[in-house]
Parts: sequence; C-alpha cells; structure tokens
Amino acid sequence: MNRVRIAQMQMPVFDNKVKTEKYINEAVKKAADQKADIICLPEMFCCPYQVENFPLYAEGEGERMWKACSAIAKQYGIYLSAGTMPEKSEDGKIYNTAYVFDREGKQIAKHRKAHLFDIDVKGGQYFKESDTLSAGNKATVFDTEFGTFGICICYDFRFPELSRLMALKGAKLIFVPAAFNMTTGPAHWELMFRSQSVNNQVFAVGTAPSRMAGASYQSWGHSIVTDPWGAVVSQMDEKEGMNITEIDLERADEVREQLPLLKQRRTDIYTLKEIE
Amino acid sequence: MNRVRIAQMQMPVFDNKVKTEKYINEAVKKAADQKADIICLPEMFCCPYQVENFPLYAEGEGERMWKACSAIAKQYGIYLSAGTMPEKSEDGKIYNTAYVFDREGKQIAKHRKAHLFDIDVKGGQYFKESDTLSAGNKATVFDTEFGTFGICICYDFRFPELSRLMALKGAKLIFVPAAFNMTTGPAHWELMFRSQSVNNQVFAVGTAPSRMAGASYQSWGHSIVTDPWGAVVSQMDEKEGMNITEIDLERADEVREQLPLLKQRRTDIYTLKEIE
Repeated sequence: MNRVRIAQMQMPVFDNKVKTEKYINEAVKKAADQKADIICLPEMFCCPYQVENFPLYAEGEGERMWKACSAIAKQYGIYLSAGTMPEKSEDGKIYNTAYVFDREGKQIAKHRKAHLFDIDVKGGQYFKESDTLSAGNKATVFDTEFGTFGICICYDFRFPELSRLMALKGAKLIFVPAAFNMTTGPAHWELMFRSQSVNNQVFAVGTAPSRMAGASYQSWGHSIVTDPWGAVVSQMDEKEGMNITEIDLERADEVREQLPLLKQRRTDIYTLKEIE
Repeated sequence: MNRVRIAQMQMPVFDNKVKTEKYINEAVKKAADQKADIICLPEMFCCPYQVENFPLYAEGEGERMWKACSAIAKQYGIYLSAGTMPEKSEDGKIYNTAYVFDREGKQIAKHRKAHLFDIDVKGGQYFKESDTLSAGNKATVFDTEFGTFGICICYDFRFPELSRLMALKGAKLIFVPAAFNMTTGPAHWELMFRSQSVNNQVFAVGTAPSRMAGASYQSWGHSIVTDPWGAVVSQMDEKEGMNITEIDLERADEVREQLPLLKQRRTDIYTLKEIE
C-alpha cells in the first residue's frame, strides 16, 4: 500500500460547465485505464480565474459540479482530488474550496483556501482574491488507504506554518491545486514545492491549469511532484496534458530516519499550534 | 543607511589558532580596504569540524579568539560576524557559538546553535554534534546602524520556525555561518537559502569554509547571498576566497509591500511563539 500512482490533469479551464464535465470524464477514464490511484485537478478547474467569476460560478457543497466529481470517482473507483471550485456557503459567502472524494465517491476532505492571494507586484501581477472570496480557517488532513495526506490551495502553500501543521498531523503527502502566474511561477513555483517538501519531509503534488492563449489569467502550468528529499520527481511544461507519477511513500519514512528534522524541532524554544 | 557591503570569508580552517588569527587579520584588512561594512566568517572557522575537536578548541566568552575578533573589528572599524567557535560555558558545557562585534569591537550578539546536527544518511553522511555539544535556546536578533538583523547557525536554518521568529522580531537580513557537506550541500544549500529568504522576505547570508583536500569534513563551500524575492545575489564555488556583495535593504520593504506574506499570515488559525 506504499506505492501510489498519481495522475495530474493539467487542463484548460472552460467557461462552460458542460464542457468541463465532459473533459474530466474523458480524462479520468484515461487515467483509470493507466491504473492511476488518485486523479488531481487544478485550482478553479471549472471557473475562469478572475475574481468577478467566483460568485457567478459558485455552487453549494453537494450541488452540480460536486455531484459530477463524486460520480466520476465512484464510476472509475479512484480517488479524486477535485482541484478547487468556487463554493457558495449557506450564508452566501464565496470560498475557494478543494474537495477530495474516495473510490466510492464519498467526500473525505474539504479545504477552503485559508490564505487569499492579494498581490501587487510593481510592473507585474495585480490580483485581489479577497475582493470576492472569504477565507477558510484550518489546516486540512485526511485519511486514505495509503495513509494520511494533507491538502491546501496555491497561496496557502507559501506559509510554512500551514504545511508544518499538516506534517505534524501525520501527512506524508500534500496535494496543492494551484495556479501560479507568469510573475510568481518562474520565480517561486518549483522553489516552493521543493522547499516545503524537504522542510516537512513530505511529497508534494502541485496541479495547475494549462496555459491558454488569450486567457486573462496566464497560468504558469508546470504541474509538479516533489519528494521528501526536495527533489523534483516530475514536472510538466505549460501545455495541456496528463502526467502520471508513481511514488513510494516509504521514501518519507526513510528520509525522516536519515535526517530527523521533524523530531529535532526545538519545541522547548518555540511552539507552533493550530487554534481550534 | 540602506546599502550594506558584506564581505564573506570562505576560508580554510586551520588546526592552529595563531595561523587562524593571522589569516583573519589579513583578510579583514583586505575587506576593509574594499570598504566592507560587515565581515562574515564561517561556522567553526577556528576549529577543524570534528565533534572530538570541539571540547579541545573551546574557550570561554571573552577569551583569546573572542578577544582577537573584538580587536580586529575595532581596529578596522567594521562589523564582524565572527562565524562560530566552540564555547566553553562556566558550567563546562560546550556550545557552537556565533558572536557579532560592532565597529567599536563591542559584542552585540551571541547565538548558540539551537538545533544540533545529527544525521545518518544511508551511503552518505554520518555526523552527530550532540556527542560533544550542548544546544542554545533562543532565536537571536540584534540592532545595527542598518536596522535589525538575525543570526543562526547552519542546521538551525532548516527549521522554518526559527527564521520566521527572527523575521517577526524585525530582521531584514539573517546571517548564517554554516558548513554544509558533500551530501546535503548539492541537495539543499541553495534551496534552503532561497526559500527561507522568500518565505520571510529577508536577505540571507550563508558563509562556509572553503573545501580543503584531505580534511575529514569536506565543506560544500558555496558561500551565498540571497534576496527577499528568493533570488541568488551571489554565490561562490568551493575554493578559498573573499566575496563582497553590496545589498540594498530597501528591497525587503519593497518585496513586503508587493507580496505581503508577513502581513497575510493567518494568526487566527495558527500561532507561532518563542517560549521565553
């Protein structure tokens, strides 16, 4: 149970949910044919990444796109990390939300993006998610037949506190649906995955949308898998495609034994805690 | 007061303190001639890096090597981050200790390595500092005419908690006397400096000994300066030498304004605190 085949869907984002559903159905079938255990979709895979779109595309938990993802997971008997979609909560707030479904289509994890991406780089990117989104409030881990995994969303992964908390809760692998841009991508994408992996001695799986000519948000792409020693196991370019990576979770135990970073934390000097 | 000229001494480590003093005297003179503001020496610059040497080479604070460093700083009117040396405390414990002296030769910082390096990589490095060393117990920052700086030692810098605490205490630059080896160096040296810099939006200055043929501990060298955007400003190879890098501390303010990571920490979700 230590080897996991992970399929990453670096897919285009359509402005049409029918098209999206058709696309992921075909893609998941293809991944299942290649014996993938887990399929990963990118951040906002069903909503073009613009703040004004989030309220327009948002649905409640259990509604249409959620149902479609649950059904696909069940149909093919695979885990589905259904990227993220805009979620409308009962009180009308909008969240950037990641759901994970198991082989029976049951929701086993839900994470709302906790760190909203508000950036203003001189001569570069301007983007303010908090214009339309509310933020989640926890570090999310969940159990599978392979052990404990964590999940967070894009900008969340820049904050060492959050990934550390997931590792301390037992995660040996962290899923990160994401969509870095053409400014932060070349500067920080690979660096972030490698360093969070090595610092927390976990695998990290970053899945991004493909880059689309003409889209208002140009995605860096480069869906990536890094290992607990900080090495890049696989990395795509910016183009549409599926990539399957087989990893061995025992590598996390091996690295943790050789370089016992998690044990050698000085919890008598500093304390890092999740506020419940 | 925002531009700082930093001279890094990637020097060989001698088994003879007279030789070491002579070497750093000449090196500091050379750096002062080139208008350096701060001179950085590597980890254990005056003690060949073997656990059995630490007790043999150890001196108390204020003793011979400390005095020599203080006098050199005063003589040339420069700041001296005197790498680290083995320190014998009054109760007989041995520490891996970094002292920093100001332009008057006054000690303005003292940091004892808080995370001792105990590693056992299959087919790679075995090393256990805790065989002879005791560990320090704080995150260290200090004030200069340029603002607040932090200092930690080698393995300390792998722990995101410690660098985060230094940044939260106001550090815009972190000095890291260090000595990575031939296993961890190629895998993690540059990655660690770049990622801690970008995560905490600080400059980081890593100074290592040069690699010496025949030495039992083969130093990776590659003394490095990284900036708050995670870029490598300068990096040496493995050979003996001095490198001067001029940085502009305003870059930290600029990056913090553009990508406000430190402000966007979710302190309502997690809490990171130093235990006093």
